[in-house]
Amino acid sequence: MQLSKKNLHERLDKIYDAIVIGGGAGGLSAGIYLQRYRLSSLIVDKGKARSFWMQELHNYLGLPPDTPGRVLLQQGKQHYQSLDGDFLNGVVEEVVDEGETFAVRVKVGRQNSIYPIFRTKYLIAASGIIDHLLPLDDMRNVYEYAGYNLHVCMVCDGYEMTDKKCGLFAGKEASIENMVFTLSWFTPYITVFTHGLFEVSDRLRQKLREHGYPLVETPISQFLGEKHHMTGVELADRSTIPLETGLIAMGSRYHNTYLKGLNLEMKGENLATDKMCRTSHPRVFAIGDLKVGLNQVVIAAGDGALAGTQIWRDIRATSAPRVWEENLPVVAG
Amino acid sequence: MQLSKKNLHERLDKIYDAIVIGGGAGGLSAGIYLQRYRLSSLIVDKGKARSFWMQELHNYLGLPPDTPGRVLLQQGKQHYQSLDGDFLNGVVEEVVDEGETFAVRVKVGRQNSIYPIFRTKYLIAASGIIDHLLPLDDMRNVYEYAGYNLHVCMVCDGYEMTDKKCGLFAGKEASIENMVFTLSWFTPYITVFTHGLFEVSDRLRQKLREHGYPLVETPISQFLGEKHHMTGVELADRSTIPLETGLIAMGSRYHNTYLKGLNLEMKGENLATDKMCRTSHPRVFAIGDLKVGLNQVVIAAGDGALAGTQIWRDIRATSAPRVWEENLPVVAG
Repeated sequence: MQLSKKNLHERLDKIYDAIVIGGGAGGLSAGIYLQRYRLSSLIVDKGKARSFWMQELHNYLGLPPDTPGRVLLQQGKQHYQSLDGDFLNGVVEEVVDEGETFAVRVKVGRQNSIYPIFRTKYLIAASGIIDHLLPLDDMRNVYEYAGYNLHVCMVCDGYEMTDKKCGLFAGKEASIENMVFTLSWFTPYITVFTHGLFEVSDRLRQKLREHGYPLVETPISQFLGEKHHMTGVELADRSTIPLETGLIAMGSRYHNTYLKGLNLEMKGENLATDKMCRTSHPRVFAIGDLKVGLNQVVIAAGDGALAGTQIWRDIRATSAPRVWEENLPVVAG
Repeated sequence: MQLSKKNLHERLDKIYDAIVIGGGAGGLSAGIYLQRYRLSSLIVDKGKARSFWMQELHNYLGLPPDTPGRVLLQQGKQHYQSLDGDFLNGVVEEVVDEGETFAVRVKVGRQNSIYPIFRTKYLIAASGIIDHLLPLDDMRNVYEYAGYNLHVCMVCDGYEMTDKKCGLFAGKEASIENMVFTLSWFTPYITVFTHGLFEVSDRLRQKLREHGYPLVETPISQFLGEKHHMTGVELADRSTIPLETGLIAMGSRYHNTYLKGLNLEMKGENLATDKMCRTSHPRVFAIGDLKVGLNQVVIAAGDGALAGTQIWRDIRATSAPRVWEENLPVVAG
């Protein structure tokens, strides 16, 4: 059921089989599998998963390619709740390993917040990442275009950039190097913007020049365009540069601070997992963008199936098979 | 485009970046990713993927849980073709490794068949498995219920069997042992049928008896029911046993004979793959049910994304970045 400040006390004595942190594609898919394995689960969702921002989900099998990410999420939540899964809007602040269970402390409500603690045998970390956007004075100007023709994921939207005049908005030199030559697979008409945030080495300047990619180091004052369609940028010096599309490559924020106390094995910024998405803690799973791998909706959804299935296997292994009582042989007394 | 006997000659001189064998969930997802990476691909589909038979796809994120498998496949095919992918109805008979390319021989047409050979740099084996069904004299009687309330996949449909009177139709003793106690997670009201196909050991008989699961060894003459709703079985001795659902566990046929000549590394009946679904041959990928792992639609779809992405990375690594010609520095002549 949908939990809220009013009814969540009904669940404070419960020990869930699994609490899923994050109600994006991975978390919802995990929840659907868990409930269908007849396990009890709670999804805690802070809202606005990365896929929520995608105006068109172009590469998810089964949905028309103009389906907004939020439609996938709505359908998934409805699906999960039709299976009697519990869902709570809130932010997980801390997870404490109590041995047999985890205590999961959640902040509920932006105002007059309360901090209930839920208990669970297994934990699925599905809280994902969110992209750093270009830091302009007026962020509404960025939100106007982000997820439309100002993209954050080349795998998702490179196809839409094909042979278009594209701005690459980078947060550091390494981001330029990592992205620009891959982006050129889709379009060679790339202008690189540093927004004045960092210096560019002579070596990289030379490489960009050799490929004909202009480098713009003047800070950006605003994106130009209308109706969510970005048509260029205006710089601090009032000059403008026309663009047809853009890719923001300023890194990501990982929503994983609540896991810090568990000392899970990391690979760089990602959680290390086995092929069933189990972390170095046997009762903690990580799925979707938090783990090592490709940050794609369909892969997060598959991860949810894997983690849910492995938790079922674990729990089943400790349970005796059920018997058909009426058919049991009569034992002589 | 849709290839057929009439137009396929237009593609016989082409070298595809990838040929995908199988137009099920995995193959279509791979095709969508490949086309969006601006690679050329051909899907060869023999028709009737395993998911085609599922009347309701209960656990695929993003689709209402009463969506038939064939609707997912139709949507996926339409999606793939909207990206200009080539699609051919046919059966791959043989794959020959020619060094830089593979030659893929396809049987096209059930009558007056022709056997064109297509060429490709990479191969994605996505041809999956199909379940052996109960071998009755009148197989139409089995097809009447299979995929409705006579299931073949416990992970997919165990939830629907919850606390129902369930027939477990096994093909050998090991299938009973592997399935019956797991099935009891969903329902303890299990009747085990051997259809007279094999002997059951005293040890297993005793275990079934201890759990109250009747064992029926008389061959089945037909399923009873109407309008795709199975209500029981009639045995060869004319007695009937009422049931509310059923699970067929008679093993699977792997659609992989065309790969035999490539001597790929196997794990049991499955192809061994790395985390990007690459087999022991660097230019052959295996996705979905052919590889080791959970046989689920959403996982096959994720596999397609992985294999498509790795092929893109491979091909990209051998290509120079594109340059913005107009912006190149003028070289003194």
